[in-house]
Amino acid sequence: MNPLTGVVPPVCTPLTPDREIDVHSLLRLVDHLVDAGVQGLFVLGSTSEAAYLTDRQRRLVVETVVRHVRGRLPVLAGVIDMTTPRVLDQVARVTAAGADAVVATAPFYAATHPAEIARHFRLIAAGSPVPVIAYDIPAAVHTKLPADLVLQLAAEGVLAGLKDSSGDLAAFREIVTGARAHPDISDFSVLTGSELFVDAALALGADGAVPGLANVDPHGYVRLDRLSRAGDRHRARAEQERLCALFGMVRAGDPARMGGSSSALGAFKAALHLRGVIDCPATAHPQVPLSEDEVGRVGKFLAAAGLL
Amino acid sequence: MNPLTGVVPPVCTPLTPDREIDVHSLLRLVDHLVDAGVQGLFVLGSTSEAAYLTDRQRRLVVETVVRHVRGRLPVLAGVIDMTTPRVLDQVARVTAAGADAVVATAPFYAATHPAEIARHFRLIAAGSPVPVIAYDIPAAVHTKLPADLVLQLAAEGVLAGLKDSSGDLAAFREIVTGARAHPDISDFSVLTGSELFVDAALALGADGAVPGLANVDPHGYVRLDRLSRAGDRHRARAEQERLCALFGMVRAGDPARMGGSSSALGAFKAALHLRGVIDCPATAHPQVPLSEDEVGRVGKFLAAAGLL
Amino acid sequence: MNPLTGVVPPVCTPLTPDREIDVHSLLRLVDHLVDAGVQGLFVLGSTSEAAYLTDRQRRLVVETVVRHVRGRLPVLAGVIDMTTPRVLDQVARVTAAGADAVVATAPFYAATHPAEIARHFRLIAAGSPVPVIAYDIPAAVHTKLPADLVLQLAAEGVLAGLKDSSGDLAAFREIVTGARAHPDISDFSVLTGSELFVDAALALGADGAVPGLANVDPHGYVRLDRLSRAGDRHRARAEQERLCALFGMVRAGDPARMGGSSSALGAFKAALHLRGVIDCPATAHPQVPLSEDEVGRVGKFLAAAGLL
Amino acid sequence: MNPLTGVVPPVCTPLTPDREIDVHSLLRLVDHLVDAGVQGLFVLGSTSEAAYLTDRQRRLVVETVVRHVRGRLPVLAGVIDMTTPRVLDQVARVTAAGADAVVATAPFYAATHPAEIARHFRLIAAGSPVPVIAYDIPAAVHTKLPADLVLQLAAEGVLAGLKDSSGDLAAFREIVTGARAHPDISDFSVLTGSELFVDAALALGADGAVPGLANVDPHGYVRLDRLSRAGDRHRARAEQERLCALFGMVRAGDPARMGGSSSALGAFKAALHLRGVIDCPATAHPQVPLSEDEVGRVGKFLAAAGLL
Repeated sequence: MNPLTGVVPPVCTPLTPDREIDVHSLLRLVDHLVDAGVQGLFVLGSTSEAAYLTDRQRRLVVETVVRHVRGRLPVLAGVIDMTTPRVLDQVARVTAAGADAVVATAPFYAATHPAEIARHFRLIAAGSPVPVIAYDIPAAVHTKLPADLVLQLAAEGVLAGLKDSSGDLAAFREIVTGARAHPDISDFSVLTGSELFVDAALALGADGAVPGLANVDPHGYVRLDRLSRAGDRHRARAEQERLCALFGMVRAGDPARMGGSSSALGAFKAALHLRGVIDCPATAHPQVPLSEDEVGRVGKFLAAAGLL
Repeated sequence: MNPLTGVVPPVCTPLTPDREIDVHSLLRLVDHLVDAGVQGLFVLGSTSEAAYLTDRQRRLVVETVVRHVRGRLPVLAGVIDMTTPRVLDQVARVTAAGADAVVATAPFYAATHPAEIARHFRLIAAGSPVPVIAYDIPAAVHTKLPADLVLQLAAEGVLAGLKDSSGDLAAFREIVTGARAHPDISDFSVLTGSELFVDAALALGADGAVPGLANVDPHGYVRLDRLSRAGDRHRARAEQERLCALFGMVRAGDPARMGGSSSALGAFKAALHLRGVIDCPATAHPQVPLSEDEVGRVGKFLAAAGLL
Repeated sequence: MNPLTGVVPPVCTPLTPDREIDVHSLLRLVDHLVDAGVQGLFVLGSTSEAAYLTDRQRRLVVETVVRHVRGRLPVLAGVIDMTTPRVLDQVARVTAAGADAVVATAPFYAATHPAEIARHFRLIAAGSPVPVIAYDIPAAVHTKLPADLVLQLAAEGVLAGLKDSSGDLAAFREIVTGARAHPDISDFSVLTGSELFVDAALALGADGAVPGLANVDPHGYVRLDRLSRAGDRHRARAEQERLCALFGMVRAGDPARMGGSSSALGAFKAALHLRGVIDCPATAHPQVPLSEDEVGRVGKFLAAAGLL
Repeated sequence: MNPLTGVVPPVCTPLTPDREIDVHSLLRLVDHLVDAGVQGLFVLGSTSEAAYLTDRQRRLVVETVVRHVRGRLPVLAGVIDMTTPRVLDQVARVTAAGADAVVATAPFYAATHPAEIARHFRLIAAGSPVPVIAYDIPAAVHTKLPADLVLQLAAEGVLAGLKDSSGDLAAFREIVTGARAHPDISDFSVLTGSELFVDAALALGADGAVPGLANVDPHGYVRLDRLSRAGDRHRARAEQERLCALFGMVRAGDPARMGGSSSALGAFKAALHLRGVIDCPATAHPQVPLSEDEVGRVGKFLAAAGLL
C-alpha cells in the first residue's frame, strides 16, 4: 500500500428489494471494477451508503469483498461513526473482517474543535492495527480538516493518507505540496474524492482518485489516470470531460421530491442496473427511489457516454 | 406517559477515569434527580454524551436506569444514529433494555430532504414497540424539523412528542398552538430543550422541559415548573434568572483549547462532581478535559447559585 | 427617547408602480401607525426595504416622515450599509434629514471578527450626532452580535439600544438581564424584532418591540404591549396568538417562484393595500410580485384576524 | 474586450494614513501592473476594499485609473451593492467615470432566490451602457450562482463574462465547458478569481484569472499565464507553486485579533509598501491593522519568493 495510487473506487453497496446486502451483485461489481484495472477498493464510504448500513451489514460487506479479492489489491474500509469510541468499535469490526486500512472522518453530530479532531485521529491510530486514512467530507460532517492539521498528523505517522471530498482544490494542493516538501512525511497518499477534476488533481501531484462515478465507468477513470500519468494532457482532459458529462446523471432525481443523496446514489445504482452489473437498483431507507422517468434520464446519460 | 409533562432531565452519563460507565455514580445521579421531583428521565441524549458512547455502553445505561427506576417514572431513551436502518437497530437495543419511549433525530451525515425526514420517522414508528418522540437539534444534525411536518406526523400518530433543542421559540410556539388546535392531535407532548427560557415556553403552553442543567440543579427546574403552573410568573422568572446565571458555567472552558461540547458537558460533570453526586468528572474521548482553573470557575457558579 | 419603550414599527416603504417612493401612501401609513398609539417609528429597516432603496429614496423617506411627525414621537433611521465608512455616510444623510437616532448592523459582505465589529460601532458612535442603536440581524449580515460585546458597548456609552432580530430569545435575555444588572448601563433600550414572541420578550424584561407585522395591525401590537405591561398575561397571550396566526401571511408566496423576502414583504404590502392604507402593493426590484391567488391568500389571513 | 483573457488583477486601493484615496500610490500601482503585462484591470472589487469605500471614493478610483490608462487596456469596475436599484446607481456612477465593463454580484443582505438573481442581472444589463460581468463570491454574498443560470444569462446576452471567486473548480468547469458547447454563447469570458489554481483553471479552458495576489507579483501571474498558453505545464506548475507559497502571507495576521479580510488585505498592502509601490499600507475601517511583527512575516514571504 505504500503509498496508494491510481483509481480506488468507493464501492457501491448493492441491495436486494428488501434492503439486505445483495452479495452476488456485490461480487459482480467488484469484478467489474477489478477487471477494469482499479488499484484499490474503498468499501463503506459515503457512496457505499455506509451511513445507511447496519453494523451487521457493514461487516458482511467487508468480509465479502476481502474474501473475494484475496489480497490482489488493497481493501480500504470506512469506519463512519460519530466520535472516537464508536469509530474504534468500527475499526475493530472492519479489521476483524480483513480490511487493509481504515478511513475515518472528523467527529460529527457533536460539535468539534481542531484540538478535538487531532485527539480523535491520534486515538484512532493508537487503536487501529492497520493504517488510518483521513476522510475530509465537510458536506457530511460540517467541519473541514485544516491542511496544517493533516500535515502535522501525517508527519507524526498518525495518518497514512487523505481522501479529500471537500471540493476545495486549493486546500488539497496545499496538502499535496506540503506533504512532498515535509522531511518527516513519506508514503503519504493524497487522493481526491472528486469526480470532476481528477485530471487537475493528478496534474498538481495527487496520488490518485476515489470517484463515486468510477462504479459506473471504471474503465473511463482508469484511462484518465493512465493518460494523466503518461503526460497526455489533451486526451486526459477529453476523457475527464466525457466523465463530467456522464456525471450529470446525479441530477436525475427531482429536487422537489428528494435530496441530493437519493438522486446521486439512486442514479449510480440505476446505471449499474442498466449496465447489467447489479440485480436491483434499490437504495437504503429513507432515501426516495428514482421514478421510471428519472431512471430513463440516467439511461440517456449512459447512452451519450457510449456505455449502453 | 400521556402526555409527558414537567421536568425530564437529559441524564448525564458518569464515566470512570478510563471512560467506562460508572454505574454507581449513575445510580446516585438518578436518585438525585428523582428525589428532586422530576417527572421523567431522558437517557442517551446529547447531554448524556450518547454520540460518544459505544452500543454496549448505551445498553448498559438504559438497563441500569430502567432497573433502578422500576416504573416509578418514564424512561425515554435516545436512539441517536445516522439513518433509519441504524436508528431501528438502536430502537431494538434500547427497548430490549426496557425504555418506555425512544427519542430520534432527523437523519444526519447523509444529506436530507423533508420527504426523507418524513419517511424516516414513519419507518421508525412502524418498527418501534414504544412511542417515538422527535428530537429537533439542528446544531447537531444540520436540519431543522419543519413545524408543519411535525404537526403532520403528530396527526398521523407517528410522533408522540417533540423535544425541541433548536432555540427557535417562534417555531416551537407554532407547534404548541398548532397541536392544541388540531382535531387529530391529542396527548402530544411538546417539550423545550432550552435551559434559558423554560418559563417562557411553559407560559406559551409547552408541556415540559428537558434542560441539561437540570442534572446540576434539578430542584431549581422543578421549582420553576411548579411556579409556572401555579401562575406565579414573578417568582418563576426570578428562579429562571437564577438558573440562567448558573448556566454561565458552560463557558468555563477556554474556547482556544476546546469546543463548546467539551466546555459545557465538562462543566456539568465538574459541577456534579463538586456537588458530590458523581465520582469522576471525566468526559468521553475526544473531548478535552477542563483544567483545574476552569473547574474552579464552575465552582464559583455553583457557589453564586447557593449550590455549594 | 430615554429609554425607548413600547411598539416601534419598522415602517414599510410604499412604492409607486414604477418603484418610486409613494409619499402620499407613506404619510397615510405613518398616520395609521401613530393613530394606533405606537411609541416610535423605525424607517429604513429591513422591513422598509432599505436594502432596495437608493440613497436619494432613503433620504426622501426620512425627510417625509420626520417633517410629518414633527417631534410627536421619535424617528429612528436605519443606516444599512456594508462597512464603517459607508455607514458613516448614511449617518450623515439621515441625520441631515432629521432622524432622532440611527440603527446600524454589524459589517456585512466583508468578513468580520468581533474586534472589527467593536471598532465599527465605536467609530459610528464617534461620528454620529445622535444615539446609535445596534441592529442584530444574522439572517442578513451572517454574524450574530455577541451578548457580551453588546453589553460592553452599552456600558461604554457607544450604544443606546439594541434591536434584536436574531430570533434567539436566550441571547436576548442575557442582554436584558445583563443590562439591568450592570452598574454603568442605564437608559439602554432592548427591543425585540420578533413578531411571534413579543409577549415572552416583554415578560422577561424587554423594553419594547419592533415587529414588521405592526404595519398591518398596529392596534394589535399596541394592545399586546399594554396588556403585557398591565400584567394581564392571559389576554396578552391570546392577542399574541391572534397575531401569530395573522403572521402566517408571510408564506403566501410560492417558494418555488420567489424567496422569503419577496413573499413576506409582498404580503405586508398586499395587506396594507387591501386595508386601504397604501395605493400600490409593489415591492422593489428584483423581488418577485405576489400573484393574484397569493394576494387572495393574504386577504384570507386579514379576514380571519378580523381586519377586513 | 471580446472576450477578455489573461491576467486581470483586482487592483488594491491605496489609502493615506487618514483613509483617503492615495492617488499617487494608485497611479504607481497601475503602472506596476500594466508594465508587468496584465491584460485588464478590475477596480472596486473585494480586493480593492470596495465594500469599505464611500461612493465619492469609488468614483475617484475609477476616474483616476481610466484617465491614466487611456484605453491601453480595459478597466472593469465593481458595482458592489445590495440590490438592483442600488447597483444601477453604482453602474451610472462608474460608467460616467469611464469604466469599460461592470462587475456585479448576486443581491446580498436581502435573502435571495434564483428567480430573483436572474431578474437582478437582467435588470442590470438592461440599465447598463457597458457589458456586465457576473461576480460569483459566495463567501461575501452567501449564495452561489448556479452554473445553469450563468449559462442561461450568457446565452441571452445578459452576461459578458464571469469572475468566479467561489473556489469551486467543478462548478467553474461546468460553465467553461458549457459555454464552449452552447450554440448561443460566444465571446463569453470565464475568469477564475483563485490565486491558487490558475494553472488548473487555464488547463481546463478558462479565459483568464483575476488573482488578488497579482497586485504583489504581477510578473509571476503573467508568466504563469504565458507558460500555460504555451503548453509548458511543468514550468507553469512550478510558477504556480511559487505563487501558492507567496500567498501564505494572507495568514500573517493573528486570527485571535482580526478577521481574514484584515489579515489578507493587510498583507497585500504591507507587501506593496515593502516593495515600494505604495506609500502607506493602511486598510480601511474597521479592519484591524497588522502589527510590526506581522508585517515582518509578510516581508519573509516576499524574501522567500525573491521579491525583496
